[in-house]
Order: sequence, then C-alpha cells, then structure tokens
Amino acid sequence: MIVMLAGGIGGAKLVSGFYLGNLASELTVIGNTGDDLKFLGLRICPDLDTIVYTLSGKVDPKRGWGLEGDSFSTLDALKILGAQDWFRLGDRDLATHVWRSSLLAEGLTLTEVTRRMCQVFGVECRLLPMTDTYVPTEIVTEIGALHLQEYLVRERCRPKIRQIRYPGIEESKPSVAVEESICKASVVILCPSNPFISIGPILAVPGIRSCLRDTDVPIVAVSPIVAGKALKGPAAKMLEQLGYDVSPTSIARLYSDFLDVFILDERDEILRAEIEDMGIKVQVLNTVMYTLPDKIALARDILKSL
Amino acid sequence: MIVMLAGGIGGAKLVSGFYLGNLASELTVIGNTGDDLKFLGLRICPDLDTIVYTLSGKVDPKRGWGLEGDSFSTLDALKILGAQDWFRLGDRDLATHVWRSSLLAEGLTLTEVTRRMCQVFGVECRLLPMTDTYVPTEIVTEIGALHLQEYLVRERCRPKIRQIRYPGIEESKPSVAVEESICKASVVILCPSNPFISIGPILAVPGIRSCLRDTDVPIVAVSPIVAGKALKGPAAKMLEQLGYDVSPTSIARLYSDFLDVFILDERDEILRAEIEDMGIKVQVLNTVMYTLPDKIALARDILKSL
Repeated sequence: MIVMLAGGIGGAKLVSGFYLGNLASELTVIGNTGDDLKFLGLRICPDLDTIVYTLSGKVDPKRGWGLEGDSFSTLDALKILGAQDWFRLGDRDLATHVWRSSLLAEGLTLTEVTRRMCQVFGVECRLLPMTDTYVPTEIVTEIGALHLQEYLVRERCRPKIRQIRYPGIEESKPSVAVEESICKASVVILCPSNPFISIGPILAVPGIRSCLRDTDVPIVAVSPIVAGKALKGPAAKMLEQLGYDVSPTSIARLYSDFLDVFILDERDEILRAEIEDMGIKVQVLNTVMYTLPDKIALARDILKSL
Repeated sequence: MIVMLAGGIGGAKLVSGFYLGNLASELTVIGNTGDDLKFLGLRICPDLDTIVYTLSGKVDPKRGWGLEGDSFSTLDALKILGAQDWFRLGDRDLATHVWRSSLLAEGLTLTEVTRRMCQVFGVECRLLPMTDTYVPTEIVTEIGALHLQEYLVRERCRPKIRQIRYPGIEESKPSVAVEESICKASVVILCPSNPFISIGPILAVPGIRSCLRDTDVPIVAVSPIVAGKALKGPAAKMLEQLGYDVSPTSIARLYSDFLDVFILDERDEILRAEIEDMGIKVQVLNTVMYTLPDKIALARDILKSL
C-alpha cells in the first residue's frame, strides 16, 4: 500500500500519476485540511475537493481547482446581497459544500463525508482527511493574523509573513484510519506540496510525525522547489519570508528527522551532496509535471528509484 | 398605515396591488413564516422570499415563486451527490438562503435579515416576519406528520389531511415591530391567502389575534375561495378534508371573532346574507387578479369600500 501526504493542486498532480497510472494495488491519500474554511456558514475543504475533482477528471484544468465548466450565479447573487464573495464558489462546487456542511451538522465525521464524496465521484483510492477536527492554519502577517485562505485568496499572498501557526492542532488527533494507513504502508510519499501550509499541518497533527519517525518503510519526499522557484503557489515566498533559503535543501531539512529519500529535480542536481550530508538518500528525476503522462512517468520513476 | 397579513403567492399579488399602485403612505406586511424550512442546513423562508421577489419585480412570473431566469446547477449537482433535492432551489435564489443562514448564525434576527433583504432588493415597504422564532407548520396526514413543505412540495398535497398544527407556536412571540404595526394601523387587511397555512400561523403567534380583536380600526379579509375553488394552492382541499364547507362563508367564520369587513367575489354574491348574519359587513368585488392592473384595481376597490 502506498500512502501519500498531499495538499491541493501540486499534491493532486502526483497523486493522479499514481492513481491513473494504476501504480499501487492500494493507494491511500492523507489530505491536508489545514486550508479548510468556514465561509458563509459552509465548511469548505479546498485541498480535499481539489484531489477528488482531479482524480475524477472533473477539475477545471486551467485553474487546477473547482469544477470544469462551472457557473458562478450564486456567487454573483451573493455579491449583490452584500455577502462576502472573495472566496470563489462555483454553482456545482457549492453543492459539495452545502451537502458536506449538512452532513457534518447531522453528526457525520469529515472522514465519512469524504468517503461518500469519493464514492459519488467514482474515486476508488482512499482519501483521508488528516483529522476530523477543524484546525485552520493561521498566517501571522504584517497586517495581523489571517486565516490561510484570507492570506491566499483575499489578500493574494501580498502581506509579509511573520509566522505560520496551526492553532488548536495539539488538541486534534488523526483519525484511526490515518494512523492505521501509515502503519500498513509499504512506502510513504510526501507530495511536492507546500511544506508550511500543505504538508506542515498534516505533520503537526499529534501522532503523525512520530508515526513517520517510527516506521521502517521508506519515506520519500518530492521537492516542491525547482531551480529556486515554487512550481505553484507561495512556497518560495514563504521560505524566504520565514528566513529559509529558497532551495530544495531547506525542504529536505524540514523533513530530515524522518525522511529516507529525497526526490530532487534534474535542474538542482548540484544540491545532491548537501542533502546527502543530512543522511538522506537522493534521487534525481525530472519532477516537473505538465501532462498526465508526465505525472504517471514521475510516479513510476519514484517507485523505481526506491 | 395599511397593515397586511400575507402568505406567499396569493398574498404577494394583493400586496403588490397596494405597493405598486402607491395606495398607502405607509405599508407594512406581516409575512407568514410557518412555511419556513431548514433544508440542507439552510433556513428557507418561501413566503417572505416570494413577497420580496414579487414586489421587486424579480419573481419568476410563470411559477409565481423563485427568481426569473434562474438556473439550477447547484440543485442538479446536489442530486448527483445524493442529497435531498425535492425542494426546488435556483442558483440565485440559493444565494438568498446561504446569506440569510449565515446572518442568522451570526446572531441577527430574521426581522433584521428580512429588512436588509428588502433594502438590497429595493423593496420600500416594510416586511415583517410574523415572529423571529422558527415554528414550522405541521400537517398531520394519513401517512404521518409532515413538515408543511414536505406536504406541499415533496408529497404534492396528495396525503389526506387529519389535522394542521403549529407546534411550539405558543412559546413564540411576535416581534416588537409586528405588535407596534398593528397598534398603529389605520386598516388591517388579510390577503386572499390560505387560512390554515398562511394566515393561520400568523394568527396563532401569541398576541396577534388578541391585538386584532382589541383594535378599533377596520379589519378586512379577502376571500381566497371563489366559486367553490381556491384560486391557488390547496385551500379548497384543506377545507374539505378538515370538515369545512368549501365556501367563503367558512373563511369568514374562521375570522369572525375579529373581522369587520369581508370581501366576497362577485361570483359568490349569493352568500352575502349568511356572512352578514355573523355580524360582518360584506363588500362584493371582482377579486380575481391576473394582471398588475387587476391587482391595483382590487386594492383600490378595497380601500374605497371601507
């Protein structure tokens, strides 16, 4: 069984390589929920949704999130009503949030709702929220503490970051299914997702990081930084503003207490030695994924390199 | 000041006659909220919405409810998710419900939310929910007790009715604005709305019926039954199944403890004497409204007849 830790768009890319390439007899994805938000009273799980929409082939291919061909009538009407409208909600996407919120209100866990969502969308691998507790990531910036989505979407990553926090996460716990899946894994793969706002929250859920430290199976991370830039999103900006070098080495160091293998892009081969010096095995691959064949090829190469 | 008690479609017709005909220097509508429902976690107020949509000219003219030209993408997607989809929610209409629900969750009263809604839609008369408490009307039928909307929409009025109840209404109270408006009214008009599921719940809110009994100003009711039929909806069926004659006389009798004037349709003039025998003044008018001029004409005729 392959277990993958994934955020949103970047994570979904590599996951779809494994999933659509049929490279695992059993595939479990532990999805970040630190980017969840409560918006207009609805519980929204952008990373989980992006994974389900991507694996089911329904994602908007240009944006990388939301549903292809979705309309925005409700959002337009909300704007007229004077409601908050900074978080983009498509009409069909909104159905997911309304449905999820109503099931959570009925007492179902997010794990169960996500299982049902996968079923409806015909997604046959297992997608597990990192925890059933609502623990939104907080970005402390020069203009104050922001909810992660306020920082990403409303403020478009403009305010300078001072700190990234996971308030309340110490009191959360991983679901039984999350702990079990790590125990049963034959390999654990950290997707090329943002280390602070995608992988970081997953690792901060009590028990998960120690599970990874304790397990004997190989743990692999794919660098989200290539040639000094983030492939997607604010990872480079965050590294810089938090005082790290914008380098794959910084990523490897963040995971060095449990990491066995680091997948470095060909463009960064020069960094091989400094990562190996941390006691981490390095594999150099082409990690940049544009097309589905790219994704499947990277997934296959990762498995081959173990 | 004219105060009108109104349900949904039928009520909105007469209200729009007064409102668009500019027949009142001040117009207050006390709207039924006994048909409110909580659907997929959202608070929906069909009668209030119908009044706002109608007075703002945005109502779907064929259906008489919902917004003209609305799409149903979210509902279609909810259906695929396996969510309940029997209550028809348009995409733009849904914005109203999401927005309202989020404001109520923030602690605003339904009265305040409705005031803001009128403002956004440019509705310049006052629309007051009969109460801020959620008190859905219950229809006890041969297949069990149903929420009013389950009876109306999901079951299409098919199950035979045994009783109509307003559970919890004894513990509700009218808002201060409702009581004040009745005290300050120069005339109170009961719209040609269903006596059991539109006007009945309003009269059942503690204090409202006694307010009407005590006031000295004329109280007028327009018959929702014409020539043995309901103009719209299940009023005739309800009268019959609850053991009443399907007749304007039955309507007048339901209100006889406070009613001063009953507006009888020309087609029912023969009933004048039996209603007058209850001590109620009768005015015979053409009460059937198809066009906006019809609505304004009826409104004007009612005022003339006082």
